[in-house]
Amino acid sequence: MSVPLLEQLVEAFRVLPGVGQKTAQRMAYHVLERGRDGGRRLAEVLGEAVEKIGHCERCRDFSETPLCPTCASASRDAHLLCAVESPADRLAIEQATGYRGLYFVLQGRLSPLDGIGPRELGLHTLGERLAEGEVQELIIATNPTVEGEATAHYLAQLARQHGVRPSRPAHGLPLGGELEYVDRGTLSHAFGSRGEMP
Amino acid sequence: MSVPLLEQLVEAFRVLPGVGQKTAQRMAYHVLERGRDGGRRLAEVLGEAVEKIGHCERCRDFSETPLCPTCASASRDAHLLCAVESPADRLAIEQATGYRGLYFVLQGRLSPLDGIGPRELGLHTLGERLAEGEVQELIIATNPTVEGEATAHYLAQLARQHGVRPSRPAHGLPLGGELEYVDRGTLSHAFGSRGEMP
Ligand SMILES: [Zn+2]
Ligand SMILES: [Zn+2]
Repeated sequence: MSVPLLEQLVEAFRVLPGVGQKTAQRMAYHVLERGRDGGRRLAEVLGEAVEKIGHCERCRDFSETPLCPTCASASRDAHLLCAVESPADRLAIEQATGYRGLYFVLQGRLSPLDGIGPRELGLHTLGERLAEGEVQELIIATNPTVEGEATAHYLAQLARQHGVRPSRPAHGLPLGGELEYVDRGTLSHAFGSRGEMP
Repeated sequence: MSVPLLEQLVEAFRVLPGVGQKTAQRMAYHVLERGRDGGRRLAEVLGEAVEKIGHCERCRDFSETPLCPTCASASRDAHLLCAVESPADRLAIEQATGYRGLYFVLQGRLSPLDGIGPRELGLHTLGERLAEGEVQELIIATNPTVEGEATAHYLAQLARQHGVRPSRPAHGLPLGGELEYVDRGTLSHAFGSRGEMP
């Protein structure tokens, strides 16, 4: 006899971050007992999302179109470009600050030991973009980790090579904290009082 | 323009228990960044589960077949029947104990104010089953809440009407628990029903 569907469902929920056996069971039972419509909807949207959501060819953020809505928008300030490690970091800045410039999502950070170099982070395309001459300031919002710092220094060099001023959100971000989890107020303040990179 | 698929996905994850906006975002990004295969699988199994998993017509537990594997099994002891409030309670007993009898899943507890009476809990079918004469003992494993207690007393009466012996799991101090941290009700009950030391 094949594995019961309910067991398959519990196992499938474990793909989600922080979801162990017990939580996965609770999720499966909850959906079956009280959330079948929501479960049906989640199944549909999730199935569609994993097939259709790719990356914006300009900023590398998640996008279902070749160019994401932000890159395609005429109302953003193209003189400002903000480099972040992940889509979650980009979303945190977008939601917490009044930033109206554009983004570049590295989808990682420099990590030679893991084989993640400039090419893996799309820095050749970032270089080409900086060479276009429209960007005047590159706001480097990597995380305050060793690898994030190394990445920031690499990006600052790249910016200067193309006559672009590198800057960073002001100190005030808690040391060792992931940018994604910083409270809005701190993030907004740090972003607003960013300083030029030495 | 329609709502972006990514926002729809975040919203859809919120059907899961204990999942707020922030956690839903993390789940969506995690699946897209590192778990597309798992996400595809979850979408498929979830979609199939909400359509195909119904209730066993004999014990009311979740089942994809008219009779669940436990009820259909010839190796369970049909003289013992255990009544529980939910499929999760049934699973906890099945996983923690060596119980080899059968189950009856109430899918709730008596709650007149919410319109949940004997009929909603399937107690007419439970009565018919007890009348068949095969069940000798009804183990009542409802939760120790006011409504769970009321349900337990109703079930005990029903059992006696059909000449079936009602029983309950023992209440007392949890094994390995510090006495200091046990709730008052449990401690009081355990103290009052103390037994002679062997
Ligand atoms: Zn873009
Ligand atoms: Zn059954």
